[in-house]
Amino acid sequence: METKLPKLVRISIVGLGNVGRGVAEVIRRKQEEITRKYGIDLKIVGVADLPGAVVDENGLSEDAITKFKSGETAEDMTTLDMIKDVEHEIVVETTPTNVENGGPGLTHIITALESDRHVVTSNKGPLALQYGKLMDLATSRGKELKFEASVGGAMPIISLIKDNLAGNGIISIKGILNGTCNYILTRMREEKLPYEHVLKEAQERGIAETDPSNDVAGRDTAVKLVILANSIFDRNVSYKDVEVAGITEITLEALKLADDAGYVIKLIGEVDGGGSSGECLKVAPRLVPKDDPLNVEGTLNVATIKTDLAGDITVIGKGAGPIEAASAVLSDIIGIYM
Amino acid sequence: METKLPKLVRISIVGLGNVGRGVAEVIRRKQEEITRKYGIDLKIVGVADLPGAVVDENGLSEDAITKFKSGETAEDMTTLDMIKDVEHEIVVETTPTNVENGGPGLTHIITALESDRHVVTSNKGPLALQYGKLMDLATSRGKELKFEASVGGAMPIISLIKDNLAGNGIISIKGILNGTCNYILTRMREEKLPYEHVLKEAQERGIAETDPSNDVAGRDTAVKLVILANSIFDRNVSYKDVEVAGITEITLEALKLADDAGYVIKLIGEVDGGGSSGECLKVAPRLVPKDDPLNVEGTLNVATIKTDLAGDITVIGKGAGPIEAASAVLSDIIGIYM
Repeated sequence: METKLPKLVRISIVGLGNVGRGVAEVIRRKQEEITRKYGIDLKIVGVADLPGAVVDENGLSEDAITKFKSGETAEDMTTLDMIKDVEHEIVVETTPTNVENGGPGLTHIITALESDRHVVTSNKGPLALQYGKLMDLATSRGKELKFEASVGGAMPIISLIKDNLAGNGIISIKGILNGTCNYILTRMREEKLPYEHVLKEAQERGIAETDPSNDVAGRDTAVKLVILANSIFDRNVSYKDVEVAGITEITLEALKLADDAGYVIKLIGEVDGGGSSGECLKVAPRLVPKDDPLNVEGTLNVATIKTDLAGDITVIGKGAGPIEAASAVLSDIIGIYM
Repeated sequence: METKLPKLVRISIVGLGNVGRGVAEVIRRKQEEITRKYGIDLKIVGVADLPGAVVDENGLSEDAITKFKSGETAEDMTTLDMIKDVEHEIVVETTPTNVENGGPGLTHIITALESDRHVVTSNKGPLALQYGKLMDLATSRGKELKFEASVGGAMPIISLIKDNLAGNGIISIKGILNGTCNYILTRMREEKLPYEHVLKEAQERGIAETDPSNDVAGRDTAVKLVILANSIFDRNVSYKDVEVAGITEITLEALKLADDAGYVIKLIGEVDGGGSSGECLKVAPRLVPKDDPLNVEGTLNVATIKTDLAGDITVIGKGAGPIEAASAVLSDIIGIYM
């Protein structure tokens, strides 16, 4: 629909793990289509990983990014210098989540906003620790801080609520926000195999990490709940405010008892805005009726959003995967210019 | 977040059926909250129904709307004069769907756009018959024509795809878009009661209309598919291009056979953008695996959106109800100013 010259949108990607490289790939794959449909011309002018950053104002090729990632080419400058000094519009922050202190991601995001750049991130740590401060900084700079990829991967939830359910009061959000736990519980139930066995299988298939504790102890779900609490319910909570139980104690017997009664057991995160009975912010294994929309299988994520006008809205999608997370990052990028 | 004076947004509602009155109620209920959150001040300056329109530039009270609807007060002017001559920003068009010729809704929408007003509608007829022409008119006037409420009621689908999945190529959409059929098939399966019996029950409960043929013959689903085909897949199809079968021939025996094999039978609408094997645009009863996200119960609607980056995204919500439809209208209204 745009007939005027496309608007140049220069991007840096900080963190070349699976998600960061996924974003680079998706931008490359979709570049022409995005220019045609939205009138913006996306160009990756810098990428950064542990050693520092490589930059090219004319756009970095796939080859240049690969060579830098593999260590064949050296860095041009430090990551913070790239964020501050290279002219560009958006910093995509995809370094690993650190919920102890926010990790380098927190510094990256603050530096980017202070350098008057928009930020799109998949990194849960900074949002779980400093949500209010970061949003205030973004607002004071007139910049956007978007983070759809941080909760639910490709499953839309943040912008679904803010845009599509605008005008609705949001009463609560309840769902499965961790695909690894859902996979383990699904396989245990279906194959009648014990927890340890299925965990090992999940690790072999790359679904669970070598150290699975963040997922199976419920901490990953807790961090995502904190992001929802602060961004959707305007609460001011942090990771340690969440009541957390994981799935490590779930037995085959418990799954069978539930099954006989028409239920499945799922690791459910629940958050609300607080009501007469106090506020809810908890992660726990819970019974879900088999015919409830929350009963989704395998690695899927799901969330039921309880609203005052639209009733219950449920959304289901892939919670993980580099291209899936990159899809959420890309929608956030486009959203800045729509 | 807005501290400047709220922007006055004057609205007329054309069609005072359940949805139109729902919109009036929701605006009244949410007025202050919307001003606070979005910085817009919604004011209903006119409402129209069969006799014509009543208007008040200072805003119509609930009482004034009720009295006009009940015939206690007479019209001030014709509906078209209100659309053309009363100063306002948005026409909300909620007259009943007519797929033969678009009904009065088509004229209302054209008149509104030609009078340089935005249009938000729940009316499927004009969109199913003249989508391209209406969108061209809106674009040429620099106005928005939004229609989230026309497909899936409160279940977000149009803006979910356009906004939250921006950047994704949409491969296909498949779902249950008619709550009446879903209710009938669910009750037949659960209670082992024949079609005629459950239809009667649905009519008594106000879920099916006195003349249920639009729903049960699949025509309502077909019209919604046409809207998705034209708005999401840029196709140029109309109602008669849809291959349609309804649920009137579904027997208890068929449901039992399906059940034994691990399936349910649902009335499924499916549309895609066309591929090597040709284009799909059809409504038919189909087997759905019991553990598929499309297997939702009762009057719920559901759609699975197949995308090239995000994978499959499924959304579930209430497909009908005046407040639910009004929720979609309200989100569209707010979306014009965000």
